[in-house]
Amino acid sequence: MANPGEGDGGRRYYLEDLQVGQRFTSATHEIDAAQIKAFAREFDPQPFHLDEEAAKATLFGGLAASGWHTAAISMRLMVKTGLPLAGGILGAGGELNWPKPTRPGDILQVVSEIEEITPSRSRPDRGTVRVRNETRNQRGEIVQVLIAKLIVPRRTTATADA
Amino acid sequence: MANPGEGDGGRRYYLEDLQVGQRFTSATHEIDAAQIKAFAREFDPQPFHLDEEAAKATLFGGLAASGWHTAAISMRLMVKTGLPLAGGILGAGGELNWPKPTRPGDILQVVSEIEEITPSRSRPDRGTVRVRNETRNQRGEIVQVLIAKLIVPRRTTATADA
Repeated sequence: MANPGEGDGGRRYYLEDLQVGQRFTSATHEIDAAQIKAFAREFDPQPFHLDEEAAKATLFGGLAASGWHTAAISMRLMVKTGLPLAGGILGAGGELNWPKPTRPGDILQVVSEIEEITPSRSRPDRGTVRVRNETRNQRGEIVQVLIAKLIVPRRTTATADA
Repeated sequence: MANPGEGDGGRRYYLEDLQVGQRFTSATHEIDAAQIKAFAREFDPQPFHLDEEAAKATLFGGLAASGWHTAAISMRLMVKTGLPLAGGILGAGGELNWPKPTRPGDILQVVSEIEEITPSRSRPDRGTVRVRNETRNQRGEIVQVLIAKLIVPRRTTATADA
């Protein structure tokens, strides 16, 4: 079955539809220097995110996106095309790693893999799903890993075991 | 000594200046529904972040900010006033938790506490500092905890031991 990022047009996955190892791939987003600077001005005003020249003298060695910008773009990709969960993408946090910086001109894409599915014992209408979301650039390099525990509803609560 | 969020005007802390248990408190940021919706439209377009009415029927029970928006505002607070590290706030990720949603009208503030200081063995000009950053609302409730490992330079590399 095609995944929505590849055009199946809107299937939404309930807890029963998911299995460990299942993967979903988002559409892509190209980031440019103007986006990087605009986000940084609002949320992360540091030289390495704001100015090419100033960035050269820093550990980044050149303009790089705020990690929070990479995270926000990744979320957009997952919400719009990457991770078509019934009820949306809803979690209480996660582990976040940025192995490489995001640079102007990078084309980002998120690959999400289902790692663990845990039906709720107290709430039979839902479960928790651990998802590993890798954001990659156009060279296949991983710029972000987000391991998130998400709340996913069941389709049918009538037959759910408590 | 006052912290910069309270007006000391710009002291920057190097690795040698930090100690475990030290705390820094940011200025505050008030979030409103317009900010919540604008961020969500760009980065997290889900009903509970976009529309008061639609949000009522969700687990949030009303409009709530995207967790990534809370994270981005927290970063701004830390960069501008909260965590005055020499070299800026520079890390490769962290553990992120959102114990409660951020709501319209919330006034956010970040309290950062130094938890661990580890001089680099291979790079005597720097070290890694683990910081627990709690974002609180006007009622003192914690809406985000970010545990980040940050790279902090030493002031004096000449006397640093490898």
